[in-house]
Amino acid sequence: MNSTAPTTPTTTTTPADTAQLIARLARAGRDAAQALHTATTAQKNRALQNIADALAAGRQSILAANQKDLAAAAERGTSGALLDRLKLTDARFAAMLRGVHEVIALPDPVGTTLAEWTRPNGLRIQKIRVPIGLIAIIFESRPNVTVDSSILCLKSGNATLLRGGSEAIHTNTALADAITRGLVAADLPPAAIQLIPTTDRAAIPALCAQTGLVDLLIPRGGHGLITTVVEHARVPVIKHYDGICHLYIHTDADPDMAVALTINGKCQRPGVCNAIETLLIDAAIAPTLLPPIADALRKHHVELRGCPATQKILPGIKAATEDDWRTEYLDLILSIRVVDDIQHALRHIADYGSHHSDAICTRDEAAARHFLAHCDSATVYWNASTRFTDGYEFGFGAEIGISTDKIHARGPMGLEELCSYKYLITGNGQLRQ
Amino acid sequence: MNSTAPTTPTTTTTPADTAQLIARLARAGRDAAQALHTATTAQKNRALQNIADALAAGRQSILAANQKDLAAAAERGTSGALLDRLKLTDARFAAMLRGVHEVIALPDPVGTTLAEWTRPNGLRIQKIRVPIGLIAIIFESRPNVTVDSSILCLKSGNATLLRGGSEAIHTNTALADAITRGLVAADLPPAAIQLIPTTDRAAIPALCAQTGLVDLLIPRGGHGLITTVVEHARVPVIKHYDGICHLYIHTDADPDMAVALTINGKCQRPGVCNAIETLLIDAAIAPTLLPPIADALRKHHVELRGCPATQKILPGIKAATEDDWRTEYLDLILSIRVVDDIQHALRHIADYGSHHSDAICTRDEAAARHFLAHCDSATVYWNASTRFTDGYEFGFGAEIGISTDKIHARGPMGLEELCSYKYLITGNGQLRQ
Repeated sequence: MNSTAPTTPTTTTTPADTAQLIARLARAGRDAAQALHTATTAQKNRALQNIADALAAGRQSILAANQKDLAAAAERGTSGALLDRLKLTDARFAAMLRGVHEVIALPDPVGTTLAEWTRPNGLRIQKIRVPIGLIAIIFESRPNVTVDSSILCLKSGNATLLRGGSEAIHTNTALADAITRGLVAADLPPAAIQLIPTTDRAAIPALCAQTGLVDLLIPRGGHGLITTVVEHARVPVIKHYDGICHLYIHTDADPDMAVALTINGKCQRPGVCNAIETLLIDAAIAPTLLPPIADALRKHHVELRGCPATQKILPGIKAATEDDWRTEYLDLILSIRVVDDIQHALRHIADYGSHHSDAICTRDEAAARHFLAHCDSATVYWNASTRFTDGYEFGFGAEIGISTDKIHARGPMGLEELCSYKYLITGNGQLRQ
Repeated sequence: MNSTAPTTPTTTTTPADTAQLIARLARAGRDAAQALHTATTAQKNRALQNIADALAAGRQSILAANQKDLAAAAERGTSGALLDRLKLTDARFAAMLRGVHEVIALPDPVGTTLAEWTRPNGLRIQKIRVPIGLIAIIFESRPNVTVDSSILCLKSGNATLLRGGSEAIHTNTALADAITRGLVAADLPPAAIQLIPTTDRAAIPALCAQTGLVDLLIPRGGHGLITTVVEHARVPVIKHYDGICHLYIHTDADPDMAVALTINGKCQRPGVCNAIETLLIDAAIAPTLLPPIADALRKHHVELRGCPATQKILPGIKAATEDDWRTEYLDLILSIRVVDDIQHALRHIADYGSHHSDAICTRDEAAARHFLAHCDSATVYWNASTRFTDGYEFGFGAEIGISTDKIHARGPMGLEELCSYKYLITGNGQLRQ
């Protein structure tokens, strides 16, 4: 994606070629990161504005490229929810552009003093926020990630190396071309944001091996991608893994709210990580509440799979297997389990969940507080849809993704989570005794 | 280190045995972590007090165990600085106990609200600090790490799995026995703090593979250890790697301060990571300032190695090779390079340093500000000794180590850096549109 790089996907011949390409891009990215480290807020915002302008100007060709990817995906028989993730609608394109303007409006996180104090010996210690450096991002499907990631990394003074999925290569290449035009127009190095111009799978282990060049690797995706990255990674990784999210309907739930949260959690956009995959419901209310919930779900064409107790209440539905509890369907399928009580619900979530987003629906504050304290997930909800786990919804302006790790960043990752810090210490000749 | 575990080192027969042992300890640690997650501050402080009491009561046997390790190390021909790291003097034992009391006095980081805000749709978002879970620590030589790590992890609600070096196994076992007695006396699970009772090297890759059990792995050590961990790690890692620290003497340095900072940085405790390994000095003052610095260093028995310009000013000293600039001597050896100016100094530090601790000595505020902004190290000093990079010296009460990564924690890692966070979100039925 620098100015002389090819603007259409290339095919490299061997893994060694790909490894060489990745090393070259990583070195260029590292150099660009050094330049960005001290870029002013005005410079970064000018580049963001230029990127927004270039995206708007390139709208038709970007949407046309997306049509090409969608047609190819449909030809391969890609399913509804997965196809949805790939699709760049007018509304999503507009949201993407709004995201750029929202990030321009956000305060620059770099240089902020996080803490300062003076030691008894007179040493003045300042902890200030600094960029991380070069961040590599591996992602699948959703092409808006190309823009969201680029602009958040740029605003936080980081260089980016992007590896999108082969299914979105035309869309991503068109987006990246526009981004490069924006960078160049703002006199920033084009290597500040680079799309890896090959869909060769060897690029992933090669990225994982860029010790000393790549400061952070963020894989966003499913089991196959995460497993490959974890196996090969020699650089720090923050995983953005799957969302096996639960809604737990407590005995004292408001029945209408329980139905509404279930439908919103499962149906509003089933192809994303914060959609619910499993409904847990207290045995005491399951007989009265499950039938209306099932009716509403069926109206939304949701396939139901249940535990034996659920099957008794909802005759004719498929049995949920042990595998179901561990599956991120990303589709209009919901597994349902009747639980004894809140302890049973929490144990199910601890055993099968992915520590992403889990919710309790109840009017009982003590039960809610217990759930919030004991559910060890990045985001825990009381009487709200799990679909709110999202950088925009949190007010971050955009998000690089949703971390399922506990280290550095947990949950939606925005500008501040894309920064590191350093200590500046001022003295007048202090010596350690 | 649970109550039925052997209190003396055992030898396992095969790597598979060791892997089984580690998996068993990790599972026990994970269960203990769940219990610690909701332990009250009073409970944790009571356990810390009991640990301090048990250590004080076991002082003689711990020091005797240390003598055994020291004798064995001396027999193997271990060098001065490395032997020093292993030694538990009366003063260090006392400092270790003081550390426990200081950690008792520190505020509990768990449960602190880091941020809270309300979204336009009425959702209330709270970001609160929580323990990470089970933290594995691999370290070498310094036995005080056993205690410092244990107490900091305990206070922050984390379980710990410790892997000390074989050279300190007797000391570590004696310390761990005392810690277990303290835990048991406070009714906390003994698996909250476990020392791995084998010195088999297969324990390290086995620890690296405990996905889903070990939440964070902290290796503290030199090149060999870090390389092994980076190669095998399948769990998140924060490296506590070597310190190739620099003191840069600027043209406008106070000459007496320059000499004092050099001597303190190199000689006060050469076997630790925040000691300086390379002295950089501006060409303009090298001819007048290097001779008195060299005289002072020689009085402290420091071997000098210099660049050609240094050799001209200090005839007879050994040439510094490319390797010298990249070497953490951990001993009374100092490499010296004459640089053209501050840019040259910064480039040397960027090319050869380990981003740990670097200092500038100058009376010129503009030069100092430039150095502080552009030196990309965890801790950057102006007119103070690099030896202050330390959790105690920062006021953290103790430290788990000094991170050389940029992710999650950078520089001295204390209680707050041993925590993760989660979001608690409260609504009244909000649905995503």
